[in-house]
Amino acid sequence: MIQDPTPKRTELSELGEFGLIDRLTAGLKPFNASTLKGVGDDCAVIDQGDHLTLVTKDLLLEGVHFDLSYAPLKHLGYKAAAVNISDIVAMNGKAEQMLVGISVSSRFSVEALEELYSGIRLACERYKVDLVGGDTTSSVAGLFISVTVIGRVSKEEVVYRNTARENDLICVSGDLGGAYMGLLLLEREKQVFKANPDMQPDLAGNDYILERQLKPEPRTDILEKLKKAGVKPTAMIDISDGLASEIIHISRDSGLGCRIYENKIPIDIVTADVAAEFEIDPTTAAMNGGEDYELLFTASVNDYDKLKDIKGIHIIGHMTEKVEGEYLISNGGNLYPIMAQGFDHMKE
Amino acid sequence: MIQDPTPKRTELSELGEFGLIDRLTAGLKPFNASTLKGVGDDCAVIDQGDHLTLVTKDLLLEGVHFDLSYAPLKHLGYKAAAVNISDIVAMNGKAEQMLVGISVSSRFSVEALEELYSGIRLACERYKVDLVGGDTTSSVAGLFISVTVIGRVSKEEVVYRNTARENDLICVSGDLGGAYMGLLLLEREKQVFKANPDMQPDLAGNDYILERQLKPEPRTDILEKLKKAGVKPTAMIDISDGLASEIIHISRDSGLGCRIYENKIPIDIVTADVAAEFEIDPTTAAMNGGEDYELLFTASVNDYDKLKDIKGIHIIGHMTEKVEGEYLISNGGNLYPIMAQGFDHMKE
Repeated sequence: MIQDPTPKRTELSELGEFGLIDRLTAGLKPFNASTLKGVGDDCAVIDQGDHLTLVTKDLLLEGVHFDLSYAPLKHLGYKAAAVNISDIVAMNGKAEQMLVGISVSSRFSVEALEELYSGIRLACERYKVDLVGGDTTSSVAGLFISVTVIGRVSKEEVVYRNTARENDLICVSGDLGGAYMGLLLLEREKQVFKANPDMQPDLAGNDYILERQLKPEPRTDILEKLKKAGVKPTAMIDISDGLASEIIHISRDSGLGCRIYENKIPIDIVTADVAAEFEIDPTTAAMNGGEDYELLFTASVNDYDKLKDIKGIHIIGHMTEKVEGEYLISNGGNLYPIMAQGFDHMKE
Repeated sequence: MIQDPTPKRTELSELGEFGLIDRLTAGLKPFNASTLKGVGDDCAVIDQGDHLTLVTKDLLLEGVHFDLSYAPLKHLGYKAAAVNISDIVAMNGKAEQMLVGISVSSRFSVEALEELYSGIRLACERYKVDLVGGDTTSSVAGLFISVTVIGRVSKEEVVYRNTARENDLICVSGDLGGAYMGLLLLEREKQVFKANPDMQPDLAGNDYILERQLKPEPRTDILEKLKKAGVKPTAMIDISDGLASEIIHISRDSGLGCRIYENKIPIDIVTADVAAEFEIDPTTAAMNGGEDYELLFTASVNDYDKLKDIKGIHIIGHMTEKVEGEYLISNGGNLYPIMAQGFDHMKE
């Protein structure tokens, strides 16, 4: 029963998350005609005849994705639901059903789990998603949350990430970098609290970025605005790992290059202030911070007039030929290659 | 940011898994017309217009659901896939897509994960299921597997667990108790090995029950046989927690009682031999052992002639009025109330 000693050992950190998934799922060929899209977009896509089903799944682990010393359980539940709904939104779909798997150690009480579920249920109510399944087991240590969300979209309306076209405008919703600065703030106050438990946390005036970190909202409102304006994105993704990582997904998967203008990237004043306090370039927070759950999408230049006045949408660049590469044009006019330095749990 | 101290603390062990899920999901009302069935069957059921989508999700945790000292990674991957496919089979459906979430600590190598995935992929190939999504993250400690399977069934063919009728025959596929005896055997050899690492494990002749524990198979073949014989079960469930727990689900959810005859419960000779060695009543292993992943179903008495000669199907009892309760009729002719003592991870 003892397993063979493996002659070769490759560390997980050598591949990173995306490299690992590529390796584990290499060469898969679908057996079922209903399987339209597998690994490689925000959701898997299943053909139902007259419409499509979207399915997404995300894991959240204590000590890796969240820290219960500053993430209240209700917020955590809300976020676990929200980030999965966001994946459905990123395909231009409507989230309809959710399954939640939770593993907890006996350190948690029933009341603590009810608090967690109250956040999940709040997000479900807000986004009209039905909680249809649950699996709850004990764990040896810690809290583990696995959420699956199922959505629906018509065949005409679905938007993939690999369908951007040359010269398309690159647009982003809301503002970026806030969730990351909120995380740094919470981490700092945790250290202060550990050093001196009598000290009260100094979070006043920073509600906006704390909320960005603790209670992200899927941008269903942006989909509605685009629909109303008569704009269908040519490609779309949600920003979970930072703008850099996501625009590289769109560019490479579409076989194109891109240009993003630093001075067009939307950054809230609170984000900029706290970034200054931490001596971090706010552009770096936007490009590599992650967890903003805003929408990054491309649209035809012909839609420029329809897009330019939509509140909450910013045009930050355009797609190019592949040979032109992926570049950020700085405020000073210099070109910097865009590199994905998003939060890679495998490389931590 | 500090959470309010909770005045009341209820331990998870006070409620158990099903009680906890009931409490966490109490009062949920669906927002979407497509949501046909939520918590309370083997799968959630989604209306797609001309057919139904089935969705199921199960978690497997190291130290709770498996022990890597005797479960080879490839077998573990196969089992994680198989038990989810079995939930789709239990609704008379065809599993079509799978999403896999894995969290691992750096103690695991890429090669170890490939071994795990080779088992998942083997089960997917065997049951023609497409692996369409993956989420792989690091964990602080241990291995955590979350699998979601999506299936399809026509509206005419779907079988729920709450639709048994009075006087229906109770049937079971294969044989029971083997997976549990396999587990006891593996646990014993682990203790022997710990005490004396030079000792070779004594597992000879017990391949059948080891395979029952390490490599369960969803009974798609039984669905085919039933279809061929022209029998549609009136209610169905797969046996993950033991016969007692599952027949109680069917009985209570259908508002009925039941009678099961001890001498009709199919038990393999190897299971019986090892049970004797461990001084365990094989009926107890079948009733409460769990993890056999056989199908338990009810069928109309009018189908008796069609059922009685199908290889691999045993008629073990019948449904009664609710007031008659749930009883096992022993070989000696005594009535014993059936009690769910299945493997409840919350009560461990």
